[in-house]
This record gives sequence, C-alpha cells and structure tokens, in this order.
Amino acid sequence: MGGGVRGAASGVTAIERDLMQLLGREAIQASVEPYGRDSTEMQGFRGIPDAVVTPSNTEEIQRLVEWCKRNGVPIVPRGGGSGFAGGAVPVEGGIVCSMERFNRVVGFEPLLWRATVQAGVTTQHVHQLARENGLLYPPDPGASEQSHIGGNIACNAGGPHSFKYGVTGSWVTGIQFVTGNGDVIQSGGTLRKDVSGFDIKSLIVGSEGTLGIVTAASLRFIPAPEKTVQLVVAYDRVSAAQEGLLAIYGNGLVPSLIEFLDGSCLALAGPSLPLSLPRDTEFVLICEADGSASTADEMADDLKAVLQADAIALEVISDPQQAAALWRWRSGVSFAVISSHGGKMSEDVVVPVESLTEMIVELAEIGKRFDLPTCSWGHAGDGNLHATFLLDAKSTTDVERATIATRALFEAARRLGGSPSGEHGLGWLKREEFEHQFGEAERELHYRLKRTFDPYEIMNPGKKFRMPAPAEPEVVVA
Amino acid sequence: MGGGVRGAASGVTAIERDLMQLLGREAIQASVEPYGRDSTEMQGFRGIPDAVVTPSNTEEIQRLVEWCKRNGVPIVPRGGGSGFAGGAVPVEGGIVCSMERFNRVVGFEPLLWRATVQAGVTTQHVHQLARENGLLYPPDPGASEQSHIGGNIACNAGGPHSFKYGVTGSWVTGIQFVTGNGDVIQSGGTLRKDVSGFDIKSLIVGSEGTLGIVTAASLRFIPAPEKTVQLVVAYDRVSAAQEGLLAIYGNGLVPSLIEFLDGSCLALAGPSLPLSLPRDTEFVLICEADGSASTADEMADDLKAVLQADAIALEVISDPQQAAALWRWRSGVSFAVISSHGGKMSEDVVVPVESLTEMIVELAEIGKRFDLPTCSWGHAGDGNLHATFLLDAKSTTDVERATIATRALFEAARRLGGSPSGEHGLGWLKREEFEHQFGEAERELHYRLKRTFDPYEIMNPGKKFRMPAPAEPEVVVA
Repeated sequence: MGGGVRGAASGVTAIERDLMQLLGREAIQASVEPYGRDSTEMQGFRGIPDAVVTPSNTEEIQRLVEWCKRNGVPIVPRGGGSGFAGGAVPVEGGIVCSMERFNRVVGFEPLLWRATVQAGVTTQHVHQLARENGLLYPPDPGASEQSHIGGNIACNAGGPHSFKYGVTGSWVTGIQFVTGNGDVIQSGGTLRKDVSGFDIKSLIVGSEGTLGIVTAASLRFIPAPEKTVQLVVAYDRVSAAQEGLLAIYGNGLVPSLIEFLDGSCLALAGPSLPLSLPRDTEFVLICEADGSASTADEMADDLKAVLQADAIALEVISDPQQAAALWRWRSGVSFAVISSHGGKMSEDVVVPVESLTEMIVELAEIGKRFDLPTCSWGHAGDGNLHATFLLDAKSTTDVERATIATRALFEAARRLGGSPSGEHGLGWLKREEFEHQFGEAERELHYRLKRTFDPYEIMNPGKKFRMPAPAEPEVVVA
Repeated sequence: MGGGVRGAASGVTAIERDLMQLLGREAIQASVEPYGRDSTEMQGFRGIPDAVVTPSNTEEIQRLVEWCKRNGVPIVPRGGGSGFAGGAVPVEGGIVCSMERFNRVVGFEPLLWRATVQAGVTTQHVHQLARENGLLYPPDPGASEQSHIGGNIACNAGGPHSFKYGVTGSWVTGIQFVTGNGDVIQSGGTLRKDVSGFDIKSLIVGSEGTLGIVTAASLRFIPAPEKTVQLVVAYDRVSAAQEGLLAIYGNGLVPSLIEFLDGSCLALAGPSLPLSLPRDTEFVLICEADGSASTADEMADDLKAVLQADAIALEVISDPQQAAALWRWRSGVSFAVISSHGGKMSEDVVVPVESLTEMIVELAEIGKRFDLPTCSWGHAGDGNLHATFLLDAKSTTDVERATIATRALFEAARRLGGSPSGEHGLGWLKREEFEHQFGEAERELHYRLKRTFDPYEIMNPGKKFRMPAPAEPEVVVA
C-alpha cells in the first residue's frame, strides 16, 4: 500500500491528501488508530488503516468507491466496531469507511410500525424509538449502544430474542447500498411484501461488507408486549438441562428467549447474579414469556410446569426492576468472563438445538486437551453458543493455543451439523472456516457472487472468505 | 426450436428421444398438453412444451441441464401449475421440468419443529404434517392442494396469515437447487441461525425458476395456536374500513390475518356467505385472532373494541365449524368472481397499507375508463390486493382491454409506492413491469445475477424480466 508515510510537517499522508480533495477535509479523520480495532482487540487483534473517511452521504461513498477502483485501494466498511470476527479491522490496510455520520432517522411512522434509518444509527437508538412509541424492534445483539444498524445487517446480528422473533434480516424490509462497482442499489423498501425483483437485500444481509456498503435500511417493528416474565431455572446436571430445553420444544411452548449459562460460566459470573442459586447448580436456563399480561403469565405458568420436574430450583421474576437487574447482569457476563483471565477467545458456533449440550461437553474436552479453561453461555433455544476459551491476552502462547483449539471447536460444531457462526460472521478471524464449511460448488458460487457485486475486489477483501487468485495465463510452448 | 415434430409412428419427437436416452423412458411424459398451462388459462394463456420431463432425483436434473446447455434448449421448471403470472408456462417452448416426482418428505422432526421436503411436496401435505403434529406451517397461498413447496419458494408465496407470520421465505431455513450451470447448491439447512456464507437461499426464494431449479427445502414450523377467533366486520363506506384497518395498527393489535372484500366482490360472492350482512355493506374486513384460548379471546375482544365504532355490523365467530364454513367460502371467492363473467384478469398488486383503499378506488376508476367491471379482495393488513378486471375469457377484445387496463393498474400502484406483485411473481405476463419498477442500476444487477447463476440463459428465460440482447461486437471502420 503506497501513501502510508505521514508527511512530517502536515501529519497527512498522500492518500489522505487525495481523499481530502475528493470528499472535503471534514470527511477525513486525523486520528486513524481507533479505527484499526474492534471487539477482537481482547485477542490482541488490530490493523492500521491507510486512511479513515467518514462520508456524510451516498454520493460521497460513490466517489470514494470510484477512487478506490482507479487506485486499487481496498475499502473496509465500519459500523460501531463491536464485531467479534475482525470484519471491520483493516488487517491489510486500506481505507476504513466509517458510517458514523450516517446517523439520521430518515422516516419513522410508529402508527404503521416502520422506520427508515441511515446505516450509522445505533441499534440502541432504534430500540429507543420503538420503545417510546409502544413498539418493539426485536433484534438485540450485545453492545447495542455501540453497534450500528448497518453493522447488524452486515453480520445478520441476532441476540436472545431471535428465538421467537428471528434475526436482523427478518426485520429489514429494504436496503440501500453502494456496490463495489459504485452503483447505488435500492432493494425492497417499506412494503410488507414484494416479489417483483430478486431478494437482493437478503443477500446483502450477512455479507459482512464484502459486496457493498449499506447506507440505509427500512425496518419493521411490532407492538411491544405488555408484559414479560422471566424464569431462571437451575440444574445440577447438563443432561437435565438438555431435557428441559427439549421439553420446551416438545410441549409446543414459545418463550421469547431461551438463554443458558454453563457451570464454568456461572463460577465466573455467578457471584454477581442478583439471585441465589443452589450450591450444586451446574447449568442455568433463563426463559422469558411475553405478550399481553395474561398471555405472559399463562406462558410462564406453562414453562414452569414443564421445566420444574428436572430442575433443582426455579425462580419466576415478574417484577420489572428485578428483571432489569437480571438482564444487566446477563449483559455483564462477557466482562466477568474476560476479567477472570484478562482475555478470551469466544466463538458463536451454532449447532442443531438437540446437540447443544453435546457441543458444550466437546468444548470442555477441547479446553482440557489444549490446557485452556473454557466456559459457554448464549442462546440455547437457537443452539447458538458463545463457546469461550479463557486466556491471558498478553500471552502469545495462550493466543496461539486458543487459535488452534478454536479450529478444533469449529470442527466439532461441523461434526454435529453446525456452523462456525450463528450471528457474528466469519470476518477475518474465521475466514478459513469458509473452506471447510462449504463444498466446491458453493464456494465457487460465492466467488462469482462476490465478483458480480464487487468486480474490482475492493470491498472488504479477505473477509468472510479468501478469493482465489486469478488464474495465471496459460503458457503455451510452441 | 427444432425437434418439435412428432414422428407419425412413435408419436415421439427427436428431443424426446434424446431425453429418453438421457433420463429413461419413465421420466418423459407422453402427454405434453396439460403442462402447457397454469392458472392463467382463464385468460386464455398457454404454451406448448417441446418435451416434458419428470425427473426423480437431482442427478437427473443435472444431466438435463447439461443437455440443455449443450443444445441451447430452455428449461421451464414447473411445480403444481397454480401460478397466476404464467411463470411455469412454456410460452416459447422448451422443456418443462415438472417436479411432481420429487414428492418425498425427506425428514420430519415434529418435536423440533422442522422438516426437509422435496420440492414437489404439496403445500397441503406440509400443512397436514404440521397439523397432525400440533404444529403450524403458516404460509397459506390458495390452491394448497395443488401448489408445490418448490413453486411456493419460486414465487415467495404468501396468503392471509402472512400478516402475522410472514411469507414463505420466513419459513425456509435451507434450500437445495440446481443452477443453470448444472451445479447442485445447498444453501442453509436445518440450523436456526447461520451466517457463515451469503444468504443465497433467500435470493432463490422469489426468483421464479430463473436462477435454478429448487429440488428440496428445509422448513421450520411453530406450535399450532390452540384457538382461533374470526371477526367479520361490515362497513357501509370504504373510508370507514380504512379507518378500521389503521386502527388495528394504531392500537398495536396483531391479528393473525386481516383480509378484505370490497363491495363489488361481495355483490358476486356475498350471496353464498354463511352469514347475513346488512344490506348496505360496502366493504368487509375479516380478522382472525389466534393463540392460546385466553390469548385468542382477549385479542378478539380488543379487536372488537377497536373495530366496532366505525362498523355497521360485527360478528365474532368462535365455533370451529362456523369458522371452517367461512374459510371455505373465502377460498371460493375467486371462483364466484370468475363465474360471473366467465373470466378475470387478477393482479396481486401491493401498496403501503395506508394506501389500500386509495388503490381500490383507483382500480374502480380504471375499470370505468376501460369499460370493464372490477372488484378486489385480499390481504388488507399487508396492503396486498387481488385487483380484478372481470371479462369474458373467450372475447379477445375483453382480454386486450383488460391487458391495457392492467398496465394502468400497475402504474397506479407504483404511484402509491407499491409493486406489481406481492406474492405471485412477475412470470411472463407481468415481466414488462420489471422495467418500470426498477432503475437502471437495479436492472443491470439483476441481469448480472441472472448470468451468475445461469450463464447460458436456459433457466426459464424471459420470465420475471427480459434479458438484454448480448452487445453486438463493435465494427471499427479503419
């Protein structure tokens, strides 16, 4: 990458000078270092951008793409930087295109349950808009105060409520994005149904910035449930918890979420839990029932009836303040886990729900094999774990060992019919998994799709998967 | 198209002889004529296949595709033949690939709310599987006894319950299909979340057989609601009905469906309605509340409270037999409409829900302008109309006039921010709308996507949109 040397006098690189002419001075960030990292920093992962631009409209992004096409410079689209796979990290340099100035709510019609927002609006802002108007925007990935809707779309972000309500893609009715060719594409809109074109928006959802940059999205909401009731269910054996989980399915109950924490996770995060659990608790399921007051109560009663047989304790929480304390604790689990060893390597593997506990057991065994403590928690109802190796982020041997252990983890997930990522994406850190996850025909189709949207391969190159090198021209010996 | 002449002795064409060698005699249908038409027959629309194949496995489809690539012969994938846009009609000949022998349920795990079925399994069969096991497969397009899951996927079929539960795509977790290049692609599976690859399956949903042939799909279910309550609400003015519809939204109520019938439709189909409506009824909304018994009753009460102010009559139907009679009547509406004039041209335009009645008024005005009786009914909650011109299918002037009127209808829908198709697709009959519906960048992207999946342009060519002719080589005059 040329132009990376900062001029001594101005502190501005040649690339930045070019970009200033192209987009104006205020669209170029002087301090590039914070844009070199995301949540994978806790594994010591980061990159150095050649420049950081913060465009304020679609036309500026088009100009940026044209410049990058001409100069063969990659673009790394960036939302809130809360990703867990290094998808927004400029590992091999390139221009980070941060969407922070795309922070406008373009339209909001609460009485029609819909909004159109720019890509840089935070998930929390959308939640707040909905909540203040009696509505619910169900996708609830962690770090919602930081993450952008555009980033949620790029990763098809999930969260606990995905069990009942589905992932981000289920709530996006339209997307505007700029392709790697510089075309502005509108796919879908605010209509609730439309089959006039291909469903291109759904291909963009989960594409991790490798096909284009999302600039705006139309979202749909639903009326907020009147009441939620939480159930915290403790088990002394993992097998009993698995039976409980399958009993929810088998009895045809649909809680709004089914979360879990395993014994190791509870050992680390349990002490701050605003509830007391029996001493021999080895596994916790947390369910939520929602709906009108009577519906939520009824569902909570049904869940209790089904779950208490195998449990050693079951607490029903209807008080909103107590529930809020529970969820505050739940969102701190990740930090409690990190603080125990100074770092972690955590993967959002997903397996068929009936294999959840088998996966948890496999994780523990892999940890033993590689001499790394493990723990897991996550979205039990969807078979989606945050499978975690604990490590000292400053120890390169720890990081190396965890990296190899993680590969074994992915292999185990695949053996169980699962996938390396349920909601974070492959980014840079898991991109090697793409090769193992898909057969040749599927891989080839991905490459062709990438070229269809991004013929110059400038959009977040090397993320999600590695493009094959262009074929060498055949040398014919006469 | 060559090979279309049937040998006098054998009654077999040259193409059929080739295909028999390729796929075996039992995979070639002797009687091709029934495969030349779908539901658009009532507009006198049909085609003549060059041959009809009924493959029984994916490998046979691959062989078929390879043969068609080599011989430049188009393939017209066909499900149950219940389409309304001519998508499965071999308008310009070609080989109809009927999926009727792909009729196997590959896996069904009712306790885990999921199944994998071959593409030729009927929608009714899936409904039945679900129902017999306490589950619900919500997409409920008309003619479910005839339509295939593969066809539902091709059109992203909807139906009344889409209001609460979403269209077909919301219930498909995985698809296997054969591309126009002959590759067998598996996208997704039975996992509830997976962001390891691009969401290719969603691009196939709604692609109307133009990218490939769907061979199998993994579907998810939910527990069946314990009870449903229907509300039939009569209005003497369209404006009052529109207020009622928006009041459902504005009060944050989520019925499982919100259907409507306008005055003209009631005049034709009303006499057989198993209820008596006030004489001055000009519009009917039908809502359904579902859930546990108490939830359904509670929602029905809420709906009644919100809707009765503007209505001239409101009937609550809790008795399952009475409800079944109502829905039998509802599914006969289309036939009652047809029988009034001997034919109809009906389009599934969709508009923002707040513009529903404006669209209905526009339809009536267009009808007057072209001297054609009109009526409409459909999925009010989604802004999705079956906007209908009544005609004598044997009268070519009627059909011609209706064709022009339909264009005006699409234009009106677009003016209101709508689309020419909410759930039927563009097929052949509405393909011209593609040009009007999308801008140049979007059209170009569709063409590139088509070529990505179907480089030889053999997959249902001319459907959904017309591919641009390949660019003429430039003639350079020296």
